[in-house]
Amino acid sequence: MRALGHPLCVGLDPYLDRLPTPFRRGAMAPQRPDTAHAVEEFCSRIIDLIAGDVAIVKLQVALFERLGGRGWGVLRRVIRYARAAGLLVLLDAKRGDIPETATAYAQAYLAPDALCGVDALTVNPYLGPDTVVPFLIAAEQAARGVIVLVRNSNPDSSAYQSVRTPAGPFFMVVAASLQRWQERLTQGTTGWSSLGVTVAATHAEDTEEIRVALPHALFLVLGYGAQGASAEAAIRGFRRGPAGLEGGMVSSSRPILFPVAASKRGARAWEHGVRSALTRAISDLGAAVA
Amino acid sequence: MRALGHPLCVGLDPYLDRLPTPFRRGAMAPQRPDTAHAVEEFCSRIIDLIAGDVAIVKLQVALFERLGGRGWGVLRRVIRYARAAGLLVLLDAKRGDIPETATAYAQAYLAPDALCGVDALTVNPYLGPDTVVPFLIAAEQAARGVIVLVRNSNPDSSAYQSVRTPAGPFFMVVAASLQRWQERLTQGTTGWSSLGVTVAATHAEDTEEIRVALPHALFLVLGYGAQGASAEAAIRGFRRGPAGLEGGMVSSSRPILFPVAASKRGARAWEHGVRSALTRAISDLGAAVA
Repeated sequence: MRALGHPLCVGLDPYLDRLPTPFRRGAMAPQRPDTAHAVEEFCSRIIDLIAGDVAIVKLQVALFERLGGRGWGVLRRVIRYARAAGLLVLLDAKRGDIPETATAYAQAYLAPDALCGVDALTVNPYLGPDTVVPFLIAAEQAARGVIVLVRNSNPDSSAYQSVRTPAGPFFMVVAASLQRWQERLTQGTTGWSSLGVTVAATHAEDTEEIRVALPHALFLVLGYGAQGASAEAAIRGFRRGPAGLEGGMVSSSRPILFPVAASKRGARAWEHGVRSALTRAISDLGAAVA
Repeated sequence: MRALGHPLCVGLDPYLDRLPTPFRRGAMAPQRPDTAHAVEEFCSRIIDLIAGDVAIVKLQVALFERLGGRGWGVLRRVIRYARAAGLLVLLDAKRGDIPETATAYAQAYLAPDALCGVDALTVNPYLGPDTVVPFLIAAEQAARGVIVLVRNSNPDSSAYQSVRTPAGPFFMVVAASLQRWQERLTQGTTGWSSLGVTVAATHAEDTEEIRVALPHALFLVLGYGAQGASAEAAIRGFRRGPAGLEGGMVSSSRPILFPVAASKRGARAWEHGVRSALTRAISDLGAAVA
């Protein structure tokens, strides 16, 4: 990200009903082999279009998982393809369970010999701070990253995450419980931790609170673009680094994957739409961190 | 459960390092085909041993997911085998995401044409009440069940779930937000809702609070047996039905799957150990609800 000069993370969300015309095959149903093939083709083409210009891609597991066993194969090949193209891969799986079970999830995605190894994984903390630890141990051992859900950008997340407690809003209870591990996983020379957290560009004031509690956590910033948050709101809590402001990755998916008018036209128009949206997001975020 | 006279739900958790001697093959690693085969054989044998005596089995997805694409195939075959044996299947997947993505997870597990269809699914609510709704809509349409994580039994879950808020402990914020859907999904003649919630036998006083908020929610009761909670604590919040106390299913896994001494001996000893543990749990819980 320092080398590229911007913190954009492209979210690769292959929603079947949104797939652009050039990729659509027949009835587009999760049960159909040609649908799985269309998803793979779409993901590969996006990777071709962003490689070299973006540091990290975030894959939404649900959209592969619903394709069944075939989807699992597609997911593995897309991960391999993205990494071969020089991209880091963040798997947005939001897994979480009691420690012994969490260890199995960590083994699936973060262990050196994981069957579906990625560079980082999103983790849901609802079962307690100790249930996040097996992921952190695996991340530490294999030099991978973990992004814990702390604050989300969908409007309804506030119903739980912003509930008042004696220690501040509920998300601050979660943030505070991660402090020790955030510190422990701050290794190497970047000054940043392998333990990251989600923050919402749509609630930038919350981001500042979270930054105070977790000074070294990389943010996965949600809600930029499609949900209307500005680049300035997205980089709240970033701080001056050797190449500009830094402190996380800003996710954007739909505006880049499915440029509105272009998605219903031919391959060339869609590709042009993707590249335009990508360039706009990069220059918007790049200017904000400059 | 009314016909069987007890609320036991067997948790089918094929932990590799705990698999009994008769099923072990070579090095037992997620990457090995013979390991996936051992898991399938173990699960099938458990189903043989409990079918007819238990109404529902709970499968822990993580332990299949870590076996990669092969694990997905094993999971589907085990689900089919359990249903053919007359068991209801609850998939313990703890999925949860923003609504559009939650819809994809619901399609994977709850839709009539799901590639991995089950009778009920566990759901993690951390992203907000609206993120549970796609699962509930799918459950309503396909007459399936959803179990929302509200209160868990692992000791550390209290660090988040019991945090004080103006509306009571945090888990009550979650419980209260589910009231409308609990009501809406109370259909048919049983008096119970297709929206269930987890409760912890290790925190039976919390169960009573949850029962007041959700009078028709079936409980998935955690923490009975291995975590030391009694049958009396496990059935807290149950109420008198046509065949005894009812109101949920009480999960037990390790004491039944891995009867301590017997797991290290031959097939016959292990099977005897499983049947003994099963009979003990059934008579313990059966006496409590009689």
